Amino acid sequence: MKVLFAPDSYKGSLSSGQVAETMARAFQSADPQVEALLMPMADGGENTLEALSKAAPHTKVSITCTGPLGERRESEYIHLEADCTVIEIAAISGLPLVPEDQRNPDLTTTYGIGEAIRHALDQGHRDFIMAIGGSSTNDGGFGMLQALGMKAFNEQNEEVGMFGKDLFQISRIDFTTLDSRLQECTIQVASDVDNPLTGTRGASYVYGPQKGADPEQLAAYDQQLAVYGHLVEAACGKDLMHTPGAGAAGGLGFAFLAIGAELRSGAELVAEAIHLDAAIQEADIVVTGEGQSDEQTLYGKAPGYVAETASRYDKPVYLLSGSLDGNMAPLNRFFTGCFSIVPGPKSLAECLANAEDYLYQASHQLARVLVQNK
Amino acid sequence: MKVLFAPDSYKGSLSSGQVAETMARAFQSADPQVEALLMPMADGGENTLEALSKAAPHTKVSITCTGPLGERRESEYIHLEADCTVIEIAAISGLPLVPEDQRNPDLTTTYGIGEAIRHALDQGHRDFIMAIGGSSTNDGGFGMLQALGMKAFNEQNEEVGMFGKDLFQISRIDFTTLDSRLQECTIQVASDVDNPLTGTRGASYVYGPQKGADPEQLAAYDQQLAVYGHLVEAACGKDLMHTPGAGAAGGLGFAFLAIGAELRSGAELVAEAIHLDAAIQEADIVVTGEGQSDEQTLYGKAPGYVAETASRYDKPVYLLSGSLDGNMAPLNRFFTGCFSIVPGPKSLAECLANAEDYLYQASHQLARVLVQNK
Repeated sequence: MKVLFAPDSYKGSLSSGQVAETMARAFQSADPQVEALLMPMADGGENTLEALSKAAPHTKVSITCTGPLGERRESEYIHLEADCTVIEIAAISGLPLVPEDQRNPDLTTTYGIGEAIRHALDQGHRDFIMAIGGSSTNDGGFGMLQALGMKAFNEQNEEVGMFGKDLFQISRIDFTTLDSRLQECTIQVASDVDNPLTGTRGASYVYGPQKGADPEQLAAYDQQLAVYGHLVEAACGKDLMHTPGAGAAGGLGFAFLAIGAELRSGAELVAEAIHLDAAIQEADIVVTGEGQSDEQTLYGKAPGYVAETASRYDKPVYLLSGSLDGNMAPLNRFFTGCFSIVPGPKSLAECLANAEDYLYQASHQLARVLVQNK
Repeated sequence: MKVLFAPDSYKGSLSSGQVAETMARAFQSADPQVEALLMPMADGGENTLEALSKAAPHTKVSITCTGPLGERRESEYIHLEADCTVIEIAAISGLPLVPEDQRNPDLTTTYGIGEAIRHALDQGHRDFIMAIGGSSTNDGGFGMLQALGMKAFNEQNEEVGMFGKDLFQISRIDFTTLDSRLQECTIQVASDVDNPLTGTRGASYVYGPQKGADPEQLAAYDQQLAVYGHLVEAACGKDLMHTPGAGAAGGLGFAFLAIGAELRSGAELVAEAIHLDAAIQEADIVVTGEGQSDEQTLYGKAPGYVAETASRYDKPVYLLSGSLDGNMAPLNRFFTGCFSIVPGPKSLAECLANAEDYLYQASHQLARVLVQNK
């Protein structure tokens, strides 16, 4: 029995790689004949780099770049053998890199991302996948664009800084100074949200609070991103602020659109990069999972993408989730069976602390049933 | 696909009948072709009467008898068509019948059980199954024996009362006055514990606290049950205090031994009465469940008995439990698969309140997997 393990991470406890390994171990202990194929998934957020590293031949590239608070920071990106550079925003400007008491969009920047791109451009790379989940910023990609050559000036015609707060100084930008190599590039942005840059569904109001913005800041950023957005739209001659996903990662999605990138479903992009389709066709059954599942799982989440693909090829697909919420009927349109890994009345803290054990047990029981009935 | 549903109750939330019905509904919604055979189980505790009523043709007999606090109480027992009378201690002297603030072994009695037996004797019945779980008493069956004709006297040679506290007055008992019809009876006691009457593993120390006994009472009862025990042993000429199960139901097990009853595994006795064996042989798969499972499930609990029987006939058997604790390896010697019904991080209160919904969902998912793979 060939089993493909293609889970997302269990947020807060296990990476997608750990989930896939735990599942595979549990299945093989139920039946040593199980041929396990591990293909940890991601949807553009944290773990995307790890998922791609596990699934595709690549080289790691270490860099020193600007961190979220402006500090110098060691980071890395990967270059897939298929000649594609993968940069994860979370690894450079990520929220987990900012201590909780310092989370404030005034003080963070996406500058390092622009530096990472330039570093890859210097190596001759022109094909990019950007995983933009998990950012600490609300700068509309202002920092990144500066690192890529855009000039931004205040009313006194002085160049402004790279942090969120500096966004409030700009009165003019110059796009002609952008790194001209960007025009030779294909940039695909893996995103799992469809928010516009501004408005009540925009970057500031929806994602600002988790980045430490207070209510006053939310309003101020929403307004100022509109000012900045109009300047950028004018500079590149395109309407972009309302493009779905422009509001991803504190408006970084918008900046990527401005330099000609394509915003795509993260799960789909990752699946393509790791050739999930071919693996599913080869497998007898598919097992996926994530920390929390509900009807939303079917909208752009990795397990939903896995399930839709598996059912396209008539392969049974099983979901092992940290939490199943709401009616399972929509999920059961694609998933053969959906199981929680939680073994009894447990607090969230217990579930997070024992996630690997719970997952192992639940996977093992499911495996026993499938082996018995195969 | 013929599916036998033979669960125990989910203590505190669903009776075994409700569990079986919910499981069957969930399976049939996954596959209308499922032929559901419902055989709610019990292990001698509460729900035993219900389980037997569901599974075997019978008549209900309404009686008025003495309740746990000495009050007159409407109750019932059943008489199976197979000519066997089933009396449930929980329905007559049960802990749930005593308000929490009145739980005190001094004030409770098993007298009503003796009355129920006498009532059945008057109808000509001689074959009994006694389900003795869930009692509120710690009287060593003293009250029941009195109702059946035993006389008990204090030092002044006056007859003593029927409550736990009266046990402390006895200095002499007379067994010759016992209802002579008992000698024509076969009494099988369904018990799921093997405690002796006295000592650290005895009735008082192990089960006294849940019946409202304070530490002083525990010691006093343990000592006094020994005094009473010796009097009864002398009267019936048998050593019984250390027989496994003598300590069941506050020592009621001991009193049953004294009138010639046989103590048996409750699950086995119920299984026999409902012809579980034959039903398992007829089924393609077996599903059972209970509120909480661990290795102890294999020792005298209904789902353990179901699983052992099912594996004897090589039938796959699945456990759906409110809580799975510890290592599943011992359970997996008999159970094909063990699943928790809890869908995520939930408090015990949430689990109890939503047990039916959780059970339905988990059963439905398991059914989908089995149907897909059948």
